Amino acid sequence: MTDKPNQFLDIAVPGVTNLKPYVPGKPISELERELGITDSVKLASNENPLGCSELAKAAIQAELADVALYPDGGGVALRTALAAKHNVAPNCITLGNGSNDVLDMIARVFLAPGYESLFSQYAFAVYPISSQAVGATLNIVPAKDYGHDLEEMLNRVGEKTRVVWIANPNNPTGTWLNSEELEGFIAAVPGNVIVVVDEAYIEYVDEADYPDASLWLDKYPNLIVTRTFSKSYGLASLRVGYGLAHPDITDLLNRVRQPFNVNSMALAAALAALDDQTFIQRSVETNRQGMAQLTSAFEAMGLEYIPSVGNFVTVDLGRSAAEIDQALLRAGCITRPVANYGLPNHLRITVGLENQNSRVLAALKQALAG
Amino acid sequence: MTDKPNQFLDIAVPGVTNLKPYVPGKPISELERELGITDSVKLASNENPLGCSELAKAAIQAELADVALYPDGGGVALRTALAAKHNVAPNCITLGNGSNDVLDMIARVFLAPGYESLFSQYAFAVYPISSQAVGATLNIVPAKDYGHDLEEMLNRVGEKTRVVWIANPNNPTGTWLNSEELEGFIAAVPGNVIVVVDEAYIEYVDEADYPDASLWLDKYPNLIVTRTFSKSYGLASLRVGYGLAHPDITDLLNRVRQPFNVNSMALAAALAALDDQTFIQRSVETNRQGMAQLTSAFEAMGLEYIPSVGNFVTVDLGRSAAEIDQALLRAGCITRPVANYGLPNHLRITVGLENQNSRVLAALKQALAG
Repeated sequence: MTDKPNQFLDIAVPGVTNLKPYVPGKPISELERELGITDSVKLASNENPLGCSELAKAAIQAELADVALYPDGGGVALRTALAAKHNVAPNCITLGNGSNDVLDMIARVFLAPGYESLFSQYAFAVYPISSQAVGATLNIVPAKDYGHDLEEMLNRVGEKTRVVWIANPNNPTGTWLNSEELEGFIAAVPGNVIVVVDEAYIEYVDEADYPDASLWLDKYPNLIVTRTFSKSYGLASLRVGYGLAHPDITDLLNRVRQPFNVNSMALAAALAALDDQTFIQRSVETNRQGMAQLTSAFEAMGLEYIPSVGNFVTVDLGRSAAEIDQALLRAGCITRPVANYGLPNHLRITVGLENQNSRVLAALKQALAG
Repeated sequence: MTDKPNQFLDIAVPGVTNLKPYVPGKPISELERELGITDSVKLASNENPLGCSELAKAAIQAELADVALYPDGGGVALRTALAAKHNVAPNCITLGNGSNDVLDMIARVFLAPGYESLFSQYAFAVYPISSQAVGATLNIVPAKDYGHDLEEMLNRVGEKTRVVWIANPNNPTGTWLNSEELEGFIAAVPGNVIVVVDEAYIEYVDEADYPDASLWLDKYPNLIVTRTFSKSYGLASLRVGYGLAHPDITDLLNRVRQPFNVNSMALAAALAALDDQTFIQRSVETNRQGMAQLTSAFEAMGLEYIPSVGNFVTVDLGRSAAEIDQALLRAGCITRPVANYGLPNHLRITVGLENQNSRVLAALKQALAG
């Protein structure tokens, strides 16, 4: 082989040549081996600490008989159930290999070199990655109190703007927009600009004026709402999410969708999980208690945190988080540094079970004292 | 909602506006309901009629404990095993959500408006779809005896050509290129043109001079070889395939790869399946017998077929296949019409178990007589 590095950069498309290659996180098993520990606690990826519904597990087992068969490429059963849940037609639903896949389809359909992708500082990392991969220009609006500055975002919507991305609540900050703010923004954006509202964490939110943007689909045909089964539904390993949009948009997304993008286990488990809302309620309640446990401990420790309505909370350590993160790792506690989001003094901690939270809090106390 | 159809076509990128939306096939259950039958035989999707390895099923069950956790985004364990199998470094391996995902990544990295995607008539449908989705120009070379006309393909490689796609063996025709032909072609293609050799069906081939193109990676850094676990390994439901390439190319593909593109069940099942080569041998032997059964029956019926080294055979009915397909469906036999490939008189039939083949052959005989 040649010694010249990245000789193929010359023939790759422009957006890709500027993209940082994805550096995968280490599997827990590898991390444990490196650290010489066996009982680590991972509160890093906003996974559901209760696991998933038993109905979903049973559905996966039932699929074992048909492992050799291709999935239903149309995802008919799941799309029908989701359509009923959201009171829309099945041709408003696009299934994705996680909602990441839907976000990627949106970028591929509506963005290209010369067009702008607009989002807030501290937005989910997939928005810039998917936008840049198709060569679009990034227009990143400075945050206000760690959340969206909708006024400035609206100011920046211009002729070149094709897609505006808003996570509600936002990851990694946990901030959120109320119904009036968000709908006012969407109503003000021109109809030929796509507005994506990413509701990955919606089930955890318990605020009176928190909006379910999917209820606005009839009013705003340029709106796309995304949801996932990776968070409260506890199906992150399987990869399934979806987009809700006008049938014309759904038709376009389907053109770039890989025909069998969602695997059979994911289709079956998601369908079953929808029927177990008791599990969701239990997950939300566990999260409420865990969030109170974490935030009251932060207050007792004199640490500022960004008030969050999700299943995670981002805490300000008042100094570089990198060293503290290393100390936590040595204590077997995996959390998420967010320096890559421009928050070098913060750590994002997923809300876990009581004993998991306690262990991370104890390790954090020790690390900060050490 | 608006009445104007596809208003968003105006703002979609050019390649997407010309793409035909994907029309998903009906699930078997829906087809059976429509036809009023319960015991259909499906020899339509080149699935393994023996199912999959029991080791793979056990690996899936072991993953049930961690359904709520994200997959290992780096796919470290599977990539390490595949690297050992192919005697390459792990950074030569790109995992995909099926090999379709890898093919799509290749198109996204190397093709764009103004560049050409080159492949043969009767090539796998994903090559044009993935190429068109990124706005590339299609250069489709007429087939020779249903297979690749490599001389003409080489003639057509020009300044705009970025990717040449070759399936060996080819789907849906089952034709193949020998070692000398294929390597001669790759050696003659300029080094700044990517050559993709899609080996989805390689395990079924039993020909002395059939090449394993992955052995040539050291010689041709512009070569990408793709493989899948959906065919002989019997893991189609899970979606897992991979690309083998120079580390520089792998690095580029990883930039557009979705971080968690391969689900945990797929990673675990594929790893386990690699260890069960006895299952592969049994699958190949079953296929050999079934292929003989089908082709000798075609000969007895006076039907021409395209000699195939895969796990399917494409038979010429001597008249429009659409009606015969309908008659087969009414008899509960699902095969694959290939009119969309420009073969309106042919049906592609997957090699099944003896009793499945017999049933389809009997239904075919009756349909042709009726």
